[in-house]
Amino acid sequence: MFENQDRTNLEELGEFGLIGHLTKNIKLTNESSKKGVGDDAAVLDFAGKKVLVSTDMLLEGIHFDLAYTPLKHLGYKAIQVNLSDIYAMNGIASQVTVSIGMSSKFPLEAIEELYQGIYIACEKYNVDLIGGDTTSSKQGLVISVTSIGYADEADIVYRNGAEEGDLICVSGDLGGAYTGLQLLEREKLIYLENPNIQPDLEGKDYIVERQLKPEARRDVVELLKSIEVKPTAMIDVSDGLASELLHICKQSNKGCNLYEEKIPLDPMTFETAREFNLDPTICALSGGEDYELLFTVKQADYDKIKFKMDISIIGYITEPSAGCNLITKSGTVHELKAQGWNAFKKAE
Amino acid sequence: MFENQDRTNLEELGEFGLIGHLTKNIKLTNESSKKGVGDDAAVLDFAGKKVLVSTDMLLEGIHFDLAYTPLKHLGYKAIQVNLSDIYAMNGIASQVTVSIGMSSKFPLEAIEELYQGIYIACEKYNVDLIGGDTTSSKQGLVISVTSIGYADEADIVYRNGAEEGDLICVSGDLGGAYTGLQLLEREKLIYLENPNIQPDLEGKDYIVERQLKPEARRDVVELLKSIEVKPTAMIDVSDGLASELLHICKQSNKGCNLYEEKIPLDPMTFETAREFNLDPTICALSGGEDYELLFTVKQADYDKIKFKMDISIIGYITEPSAGCNLITKSGTVHELKAQGWNAFKKAE
Repeated sequence: MFENQDRTNLEELGEFGLIGHLTKNIKLTNESSKKGVGDDAAVLDFAGKKVLVSTDMLLEGIHFDLAYTPLKHLGYKAIQVNLSDIYAMNGIASQVTVSIGMSSKFPLEAIEELYQGIYIACEKYNVDLIGGDTTSSKQGLVISVTSIGYADEADIVYRNGAEEGDLICVSGDLGGAYTGLQLLEREKLIYLENPNIQPDLEGKDYIVERQLKPEARRDVVELLKSIEVKPTAMIDVSDGLASELLHICKQSNKGCNLYEEKIPLDPMTFETAREFNLDPTICALSGGEDYELLFTVKQADYDKIKFKMDISIIGYITEPSAGCNLITKSGTVHELKAQGWNAFKKAE
Repeated sequence: MFENQDRTNLEELGEFGLIGHLTKNIKLTNESSKKGVGDDAAVLDFAGKKVLVSTDMLLEGIHFDLAYTPLKHLGYKAIQVNLSDIYAMNGIASQVTVSIGMSSKFPLEAIEELYQGIYIACEKYNVDLIGGDTTSSKQGLVISVTSIGYADEADIVYRNGAEEGDLICVSGDLGGAYTGLQLLEREKLIYLENPNIQPDLEGKDYIVERQLKPEARRDVVELLKSIEVKPTAMIDVSDGLASELLHICKQSNKGCNLYEEKIPLDPMTFETAREFNLDPTICALSGGEDYELLFTVKQADYDKIKFKMDISIIGYITEPSAGCNLITKSGTVHELKAQGWNAFKKAE
């Protein structure tokens, strides 16, 4: 990917040189960011608001495959995945710290690409990069992000507030990131068998992008605020719809009825799942990585929600003894189960 | 280390099972911790105080060697290393998030040991574990910690506040962690050559502990507060005295005179350095990982500081044109240089 003349050696640059180089253009834009990179700790001021903190780690070979993941996309995604958790609390994301471990054999230009994606995401979502750590890794690329945000206490939405009769809503569409991944994995295998065959992803941009470059749904948080709907419970869809809905039901001590026919699927997700002999509904339920927002609202908010193009009502909350059920298109009732992504099963 | 009958398989437990198991006994003790593990993000309330955030990543093979690092010590150290950054801002540490990546071949009991060390450190330093991520790693053990603290604006000490004439002070003694590491590395090599020879660390407890189980100097922050001394600049000694002092001078735009004879060395550090044909002063200047606090105070505070057993005055701040100098025991003047730890040079 990088020609030799473009390579700058990380060992020559050293840790402080690298940090200085990568952070020299940072401008803090949030009023809450008082001091960013360059001291022992960043200094923030939330003026009495509640502070939200979330963290995620992405490891090469587990969460991403550099064979088909451009570094710029990876940097972008690492930020989105974390901001998504702040939005899932109905909060405003304002800062991130980013720690990177990478082989010293990586040229500087590769790290710059990764940081380009990080900075693009930060700028687009108005988030300040305020700190981090950069170190050598003997073991592939390691990315750890902590995201920080804030909210008024009255605005924070937890997972445990769903009440009987509440409507279950989800933003966007589901299963796309997972079918996109299937596609990328297939093309990788074909390429490994015969490097002369170019990857064929034509017409599949949407689902490939869902996998490689997800967008955290800040816009949904803003939409809900603008129509004066405060969800009763909320979570982001990182492990698949089933797993997330079960989290809400368990923590709220409630049951649910989820309607298969209401689950939003993009036609490309549907077609591609079929190509791979996968059930598109299963892709949505267990695929994960869509980073949509799953939330419950009071029935009284139905009129405010019903015509919002990007929000689907997919079921409702029941009493706990009714259990968590999936009602299929044919009308049969199945117990809802999380077969979602298990970070420990994916490993060797 | 672990007998087969004690092994619990991580794959069976799954990510949520593991997180639940590891976090089930957490009790939040800080008033600022409103909601910890169990939602998309933790919720904190600092009631108008400034928030301090710092993060560090520890990678197997770069920052630690499991051949001689007990997991409990490693967990303890991972927390200390991070709290140290909050204390270096003259702040109070109150929360940490901990992300762990590890091979799924690790038994649960090993992870529990690691977390035991984490919890012991949190309890001792009155810090709440409020979130994190646990994932499989194909690449050895990965630990990423973000520490959060708070302070009144007027109490925060940055690196850039040193003034001409200020006294340079350091807590504890230096070079111990580095000589301890030399010892551990030597015994590892001997053991690898002949596994029947037991490691000989007798009488070397202090420096071995400096390496394996450092203590962040919260007590120094408290001491300074109690004697009403606010440092003009402060940093923690993670990369060696020279590197840290140069950070203060550079960011304060000042020079310094550092006196070799004043650098605090424990006799065991001195002896062990000699055993390895190392200059004890170089161990202090460039060894790193001592996690002491290096700070500058006004001359007017001299009387308050001078008899504090655990604080050494090692030099003073000068005008920038005078440069950064080390005055040796024989009286010669050398330019102070950071040869400290370079995370990129240590790697293959």
